[in-house]
Amino acid sequence: MKIVVDAFGGDNSPVAVVDGALLALEKRKDIELVLTGDRAKLESLLNSKFERIEIVDAPDVITNDDQPTLAIRQKKDSSLVRAFDLLKEQDDIVGLVSAGNTGAVLTGAILKIGRIKGISRPALCAILPTLKEHGVMICDAGSNVDCKVEHLEHFAIMASAYYSAYNNIERPRIGLLNNGVEEHKGNELTKEAYHALKKLPINFVGNVEAREAMSGDVDVIVADGFDGNVLLKTTEGVAAGMSKMIKQEAKRNVFAMLGALFMGKFKNIKKKMDIDRYGGAPFLGCKKLVVKTHGSANKENFCNTILQVATLYERGLNQKIEELVGQISETMEKTDD
Amino acid sequence: MKIVVDAFGGDNSPVAVVDGALLALEKRKDIELVLTGDRAKLESLLNSKFERIEIVDAPDVITNDDQPTLAIRQKKDSSLVRAFDLLKEQDDIVGLVSAGNTGAVLTGAILKIGRIKGISRPALCAILPTLKEHGVMICDAGSNVDCKVEHLEHFAIMASAYYSAYNNIERPRIGLLNNGVEEHKGNELTKEAYHALKKLPINFVGNVEAREAMSGDVDVIVADGFDGNVLLKTTEGVAAGMSKMIKQEAKRNVFAMLGALFMGKFKNIKKKMDIDRYGGAPFLGCKKLVVKTHGSANKENFCNTILQVATLYERGLNQKIEELVGQISETMEKTDD
Repeated sequence: MKIVVDAFGGDNSPVAVVDGALLALEKRKDIELVLTGDRAKLESLLNSKFERIEIVDAPDVITNDDQPTLAIRQKKDSSLVRAFDLLKEQDDIVGLVSAGNTGAVLTGAILKIGRIKGISRPALCAILPTLKEHGVMICDAGSNVDCKVEHLEHFAIMASAYYSAYNNIERPRIGLLNNGVEEHKGNELTKEAYHALKKLPINFVGNVEAREAMSGDVDVIVADGFDGNVLLKTTEGVAAGMSKMIKQEAKRNVFAMLGALFMGKFKNIKKKMDIDRYGGAPFLGCKKLVVKTHGSANKENFCNTILQVATLYERGLNQKIEELVGQISETMEKTDD
Repeated sequence: MKIVVDAFGGDNSPVAVVDGALLALEKRKDIELVLTGDRAKLESLLNSKFERIEIVDAPDVITNDDQPTLAIRQKKDSSLVRAFDLLKEQDDIVGLVSAGNTGAVLTGAILKIGRIKGISRPALCAILPTLKEHGVMICDAGSNVDCKVEHLEHFAIMASAYYSAYNNIERPRIGLLNNGVEEHKGNELTKEAYHALKKLPINFVGNVEAREAMSGDVDVIVADGFDGNVLLKTTEGVAAGMSKMIKQEAKRNVFAMLGALFMGKFKNIKKKMDIDRYGGAPFLGCKKLVVKTHGSANKENFCNTILQVATLYERGLNQKIEELVGQISETMEKTDD
């Protein structure tokens, strides 16, 4: 199976992308990669290791300062737009990986690849660490604000299908982000969504307060993208803030410094709070697989994200989403009759 | 000045309430207190120390399991309802402190005391720790969902007036919780609110992402109560989760355990993350001062919350809010002409 990688997205590109690509090819012999970007640079980095790698020249780059829609429309020679064009045109390419401008990746996916039939809004997911072994997935994590109930229904089935496929869990537990656990709690959207999600063919476990996101008691948290974004970014901010406090404390006090050293600089905690180990953020609901990894992704992250796309493809994620959304539409039509 | 205290609200009542009341009276000689609750129990706890303390008998108690509106309407002999009745009826009582059922405190404040003229929805604030010395105030923290722009405007001026009065800062920095810092970012509500807040007589510093809440770069974060609640509860959840991870780590490994011991069990960090030191959560916009302290409040918390009410009263918080909301209404009427 063939995957296209935007080789000039992210802070560590193209070096980390090329290294990650080579690592992924080493780990799975059944995949082939297409890298888009400046051909000369990529060739010199690849250093003649061209087995199962193809380069497609794309001299331009979309940066984080670019306005997403304009960039996708105008920067036709950029590594990202070229990657999307290949994904669109070549039937044998099954997915795309990029660490570039998030808005541009989402816009490109919608404009170039399009939505799965029945899905009104594709959703960007983020995976957060929990106190248990598995992460919790936030869907939507910021790509869709001002959602309607129908959108949250789609987020729920897409995220359920993803979590099930990627983690090989039959019935992942799906919760709804709310300001209280009781059925009557919430704003207009979540009160209505609660009842809608209960009727879906998923394992809906009810409302979840943000305080419990990290408990690991649910696998997926469904939310309007504005709220999912607040949850995601607060988690990042507090984790970073507390790490900073621990460091400050260690500097202030020789005993504390010894303490921090003894604790191995909290390596295990750092590992636990490191969201990278869960792979990149999937943009669910597009006709082909699109996974965004973060701007500072390193070689291992690129490798894992490429393998993630391969896993999702072979487990038939998009077929599953299409099947589920079809079931919902049928039920709705019957109810409407 | 006289303050009424619900002596049977919170997990540690009435002991911590009585001890906190006595401590507050010791610290400020110009205040008098009224405690509501079971007279016999309170008298035995006070042990003849009745100077500047009055007891008003209230044999019933509102618990956390009570439905707020029903409880306020029906439990007329409860310590909380009696406290609100006194606050309403006696001109010389300037404010109320309770650690009881949050919903009941908010409902009681609205039904019994009423709103300041011009304020459409009073707002519950929460104060979160930051990396700097001062805390950041979230307004609204959960009492109002499905807000309109006008509500956010009122939250902004009330929180600005509070922060200024309580912390003696002339122009506190007010930010708007949003999913990006740029002016065009946001959902329908925040996009419009951005422009409205810019016109207010406050020090509006623009959009703030949840990631930056803990930075201490703003003093107040204005938000719809649903989003403010997600911010607040995510912060609590991640702080508790990371503390748990540190403890688990310390158990797993003898060196880590030594480390944790050397670090004085992170006392300073715990202190930093301890929101109690900033006082109770004010419910802004009611005709008289109402401050809710948390359910597990101890003696020091009750003392600090009582002193907080005294400070807010002598600095004329409610007059300031009334003045500001009057200014806005005038401006709006002029614009409407």
